Amino acid sequence: MNARGQPDPMQIAFDEARAAGARGEVPVGAVVVCGEKLLARAGNRTREDSDPTAHAEILAIREAARILGSERLIGCDLHVTLEPCAMCAAAISFARIRRLYFGAHDPKSGGVEHGGRFFDQPTCHHAPEVYGGFREREAAELLRDFFRERRDETG
Amino acid sequence: MNARGQPDPMQIAFDEARAAGARGEVPVGAVVVCGEKLLARAGNRTREDSDPTAHAEILAIREAARILGSERLIGCDLHVTLEPCAMCAAAISFARIRRLYFGAHDPKSGGVEHGGRFFDQPTCHHAPEVYGGFREREAAELLRDFFRERRDETG
Repeated sequence: MNARGQPDPMQIAFDEARAAGARGEVPVGAVVVCGEKLLARAGNRTREDSDPTAHAEILAIREAARILGSERLIGCDLHVTLEPCAMCAAAISFARIRRLYFGAHDPKSGGVEHGGRFFDQPTCHHAPEVYGGFREREAAELLRDFFRERRDETG
Repeated sequence: MNARGQPDPMQIAFDEARAAGARGEVPVGAVVVCGEKLLARAGNRTREDSDPTAHAEILAIREAARILGSERLIGCDLHVTLEPCAMCAAAISFARIRRLYFGAHDPKSGGVEHGGRFFDQPTCHHAPEVYGGFREREAAELLRDFFRERRDETG
């Protein structure tokens, strides 16, 4: 809860990440907030939906855009438990997200502070303010535990 | 038509691009082919769908994955009239597309041979074979004409 008694968006993103993990998906969750209003929340669904683009960020952005009836989420912020990949970073830019808050850094597949660093490229025409490392240890452990369990299962 | 009397996938991508332009969308079209079979075809729908992720490539990949019931389009190729952006390049990688054929190069917003060059990054875990510059002049003119007409209209 924040000072106004409203749930913390990053907490909701973590809840979505855990729910995704329980469904057998890579545990990442995302939330789109506009002002005080939580517009959309989602966890990864690439397996369940047979959709390689169904990352948590993409699903939350698509739902928020559907609700607003606009491909641009002016003034909206995105909270996500993991550093977005290149696909999600570009989608965040296209959606004109104002502020991006993310949990764990992702040296293996991240696209914000790793790889092609999309927001730093001349081919990026809108960059959000970026705040990374929220609950970093918890976010990283969530992923590590998930992949360890899967390794144990597959032997 | 190709030697076996089947329609050329890039011609279908151009048809989709022109249809997108006629709907007021940026004229880009894409096709997913698996062996001899055309699995999915799409044009941009970001405005119509109020969806910043609804690029032609994303729509064609999502439809092909839905049809195959798998997030991985093993052995499938993608034909698109414009160099994919970073979002689409990453989606192409996640979908495990085998070969990417594109029309015009896109120095302003491309993510394959410009910007973060996603397929060349250590954060990219599958890169397709890439063949660019198909019907380059026609593909570039299609976009140039579209933006010129819009400037004249709003002028």
